[in-house]
Amino acid sequence: MNRYALGLDFGTESVRALAVDCQTGDEISEAVADYKHGVITRNLPGSDETLPHDFALQHPRDYIDSSIVAISRVLKDISPDEIIGIGVDFTACTILPIKVDGTPMMEFDQFQNNPHSWVKLWKHHAAQPEADRVNQIAHERKEPFLKYYSGIISSEWMLPKSWEIANKAPEVYEATDFIIDAGDWIVYQITGQFCRNACVAGYKGLWNAEVGFPSKAFLNALDPKLKDLDKKWLKNIVYPGQRIGSVSESFAGQSGLKSGTPVSAATIDAHSGVPGMGVSGEGPICIIMGTSSCHMILSKKLHFFQGYAGVVKDGIIPGFYGYESGQSAVGDIFAWFAKDFLKPKGDPFQEISKKASVLKPGGESGLVALDWMNGNRSVLMNAHLTGSVVGLMLDSKPEEFYRALIEGTAYGSRIILDAHKEAGIAVNELVVCGGLVKDPLILKIYADVIGLPFKVAASKQAVALGAAIFGAVAAGKENGGFDSFNKAILSMTKPPVKTYLPDSRAKSVYDKLFVLYQQCHDLFGREFPDIMKNLKQIKNQVHGGYL
Amino acid sequence: MNRYALGLDFGTESVRALAVDCQTGDEISEAVADYKHGVITRNLPGSDETLPHDFALQHPRDYIDSSIVAISRVLKDISPDEIIGIGVDFTACTILPIKVDGTPMMEFDQFQNNPHSWVKLWKHHAAQPEADRVNQIAHERKEPFLKYYSGIISSEWMLPKSWEIANKAPEVYEATDFIIDAGDWIVYQITGQFCRNACVAGYKGLWNAEVGFPSKAFLNALDPKLKDLDKKWLKNIVYPGQRIGSVSESFAGQSGLKSGTPVSAATIDAHSGVPGMGVSGEGPICIIMGTSSCHMILSKKLHFFQGYAGVVKDGIIPGFYGYESGQSAVGDIFAWFAKDFLKPKGDPFQEISKKASVLKPGGESGLVALDWMNGNRSVLMNAHLTGSVVGLMLDSKPEEFYRALIEGTAYGSRIILDAHKEAGIAVNELVVCGGLVKDPLILKIYADVIGLPFKVAASKQAVALGAAIFGAVAAGKENGGFDSFNKAILSMTKPPVKTYLPDSRAKSVYDKLFVLYQQCHDLFGREFPDIMKNLKQIKNQVHGGYL
Repeated sequence: MNRYALGLDFGTESVRALAVDCQTGDEISEAVADYKHGVITRNLPGSDETLPHDFALQHPRDYIDSSIVAISRVLKDISPDEIIGIGVDFTACTILPIKVDGTPMMEFDQFQNNPHSWVKLWKHHAAQPEADRVNQIAHERKEPFLKYYSGIISSEWMLPKSWEIANKAPEVYEATDFIIDAGDWIVYQITGQFCRNACVAGYKGLWNAEVGFPSKAFLNALDPKLKDLDKKWLKNIVYPGQRIGSVSESFAGQSGLKSGTPVSAATIDAHSGVPGMGVSGEGPICIIMGTSSCHMILSKKLHFFQGYAGVVKDGIIPGFYGYESGQSAVGDIFAWFAKDFLKPKGDPFQEISKKASVLKPGGESGLVALDWMNGNRSVLMNAHLTGSVVGLMLDSKPEEFYRALIEGTAYGSRIILDAHKEAGIAVNELVVCGGLVKDPLILKIYADVIGLPFKVAASKQAVALGAAIFGAVAAGKENGGFDSFNKAILSMTKPPVKTYLPDSRAKSVYDKLFVLYQQCHDLFGREFPDIMKNLKQIKNQVHGGYL
Repeated sequence: MNRYALGLDFGTESVRALAVDCQTGDEISEAVADYKHGVITRNLPGSDETLPHDFALQHPRDYIDSSIVAISRVLKDISPDEIIGIGVDFTACTILPIKVDGTPMMEFDQFQNNPHSWVKLWKHHAAQPEADRVNQIAHERKEPFLKYYSGIISSEWMLPKSWEIANKAPEVYEATDFIIDAGDWIVYQITGQFCRNACVAGYKGLWNAEVGFPSKAFLNALDPKLKDLDKKWLKNIVYPGQRIGSVSESFAGQSGLKSGTPVSAATIDAHSGVPGMGVSGEGPICIIMGTSSCHMILSKKLHFFQGYAGVVKDGIIPGFYGYESGQSAVGDIFAWFAKDFLKPKGDPFQEISKKASVLKPGGESGLVALDWMNGNRSVLMNAHLTGSVVGLMLDSKPEEFYRALIEGTAYGSRIILDAHKEAGIAVNELVVCGGLVKDPLILKIYADVIGLPFKVAASKQAVALGAAIFGAVAAGKENGGFDSFNKAILSMTKPPVKTYLPDSRAKSVYDKLFVLYQQCHDLFGREFPDIMKNLKQIKNQVHGGYL
């Protein structure tokens, strides 16, 4: 009999269902279903009222409807009896206010026109004022959670978004029983069990195993109306791969899944990519390279250092501290320049990438680029920073500029790796997945700049595969799954499809250039960050008509 | 009877003859004749031997032949009797070794295949090793001339080029009677008089009225074989507008000019533009804006400060200290980006300039550009610097980049002006001529950035007009010319054709951006100049195959 695990990967625009053979790692069936309402940024469905520009909402019903569609399609290829376990990953920090029975607040007539009763998607950025206050007061009070986030709390996270509801929609806030992560909410819809997954609670919820949740005193110091906020947060923490329940009769009826099928705790989508890329322990750093990039690494030890977005014990794979860092723009930078800036007639990347690939590795252009066109997430964590290219001469060519941008993002990645190494976390190879892995020029440059083998993960759906792995672990050996992550990952992932090895001659040139990158990085990023901040402020003021 | 002055303007590729009415300033006749051999960079005429890449030579006979052609054409419009005086301007520092009768050394059979016997054009850069030694030893010895050149002697100047002949072609050097500036040589060809013009002797020859010529002790310290070099230099200094002789029978016979017509001392071409732009005293700064830019200003007082290429008493107009500064690339930067980098289908400037001109003045782009794509001449005087653009974001557009480049050169110009002001030299308006004056966007930005009225000189041939003015002054009142520069300039130049007035609102935005430009300028130019220098060195090493 076949033993398949099902991964449900809830992304920004759609949900993907992936059925994976637990013995071979073969990806047997895959289906994607778009969310009917997509990302809601202009106006709520059925309303003419324009939303503020930094809003990004979703309709919670879309998650259920789309997952049912995707699961139904997969069940045309396989039988529900063959599914031994289900895992769920979700964008984060995507949250919604609900009643104690799981009903979203936006389903009540009196709240349906209030945007604060809807799902706030991860990239909803309207809670920045709240985030600024959280940071200020947490630093004043030296809150113990700060060091787990390099001292910076993002407007995307649970607390600022919760506070935004209390500030902007007190009537919604009052009527709300729980403010829940969307991943945990979908797990509740499938299983009927409420719980809080350690991954999103740890990386986005200011919780961690050592110091617990933010204190009542701190919440009260933020705003007396938040004194009972912690009661609206779920507190029964569950871990990746932990079986938290099984498919309910109700969800089985809607989806065609078999009731009683084990279901794992949810995780964050990016973090689910770590097992999906075949990584089960210390050594490799996992990079998801797309429009932006996410760096994740596992370590047995806890190290505090500047530049990670979060470190969470058992947050990615139980038994390890999981460290997450990121670059705010990578593929977005290449697309900006090759497509929007140069506006070529044909394929935006083909010609320039070809010309850039025949340039000698590093230095042929004499250019060094600071890759901060969308700010810097790690290690500087400063959204006010902007991009720069240094070394322009009268013979500088677009393909040199383009290559310098790629090299710049690779230097940025190396800065992140070096921060890990300096903190004592060994990094011995790179494993990558994401939209950019199809470009050999980019991967070759990264291998040469960083000086480590760069392995392309076998699965094109590493994130969904990771969710399936969590499902198989949640099922356990007794149900045809696995009793350890090691065994599950070994069995369910395949060797890298390609390895880029660093060239020592290229590396030695990049080493020289990296010193110059570091100098520019530290000048604009550390010593004089106000130059770029002021530049951006003047731009905003001119655009706003204030100057 | 008509009274015309003739300006002979010897440029890099051609000579221009311009006849100007001394009473009205009308430009009556104009002719241009190209040099037959142009700029010799690959091999000497009749030789297969390849010249080193930093050589730029000329054939001295071309100057005579082409000037005769140009003069003959002008004499189809006017009579030689109507010419009351002749002025000559020449590129500098362009030099040649000659015998005491004026014969160029390259005319002797035994030397004709030796490139060091030919004219070394201003942009011949092969004497850089000699220039480096000159700078080193001059600083060690604290030579008094240094402060007249902000402490830096260029490889383009008389001493390094003379030393190069002694080093590379001792047989030519031994046989040479004089090493002469080409402007002085052409004046000798016209008049039969040897003299040394104060303009080129001052700006390029390490001479000045206060401390004289470089000492024998210094020359000997450089190299014992230079101990008699000063004997090969002419020392009878003559001043702009000084009558140094008149057209000889011989040259009259060849050219059709009337023998006995007064001839002025030669000047440097750029410096001749000052009277040609209608400037006869303190207050305005004159900018010749083309591929690069030259800033010149007159002052009654001597001020030493960092950043000018030279200050010479009586060097531009007698009675004033003339200060010269420059930007190594201006129009070249705009052409690089709009043409070579973007490679548009149609006119490289039309579309981008149109789009750039509708952007709000300053700051709409959030970009600041360091305009050092060809190094920095003033005030940093560092050829190793390169260009940079700071503030790039994912919505940055080519027209914003282009406008930032223009703004960057304007900030660079403002740095030069500020250095003058800080030294106590009043600057109250800008007067401009050169290839870029036809672009209103550029001039508007300069006026707004600098905050001074920007006047476009009436003459499109301000340099040749300046030479004609020197000719009219050399003629003197008794010959139908003038007894003062004031009167000559007032009579022979016309009011500016257009004045760009600064807009106070735009200025206030540019003031904020200029602070950020200054910070970047000082970081890369003063505090950490090695970043760009090392970047360029790595580029050179990679290109040379050494890395």
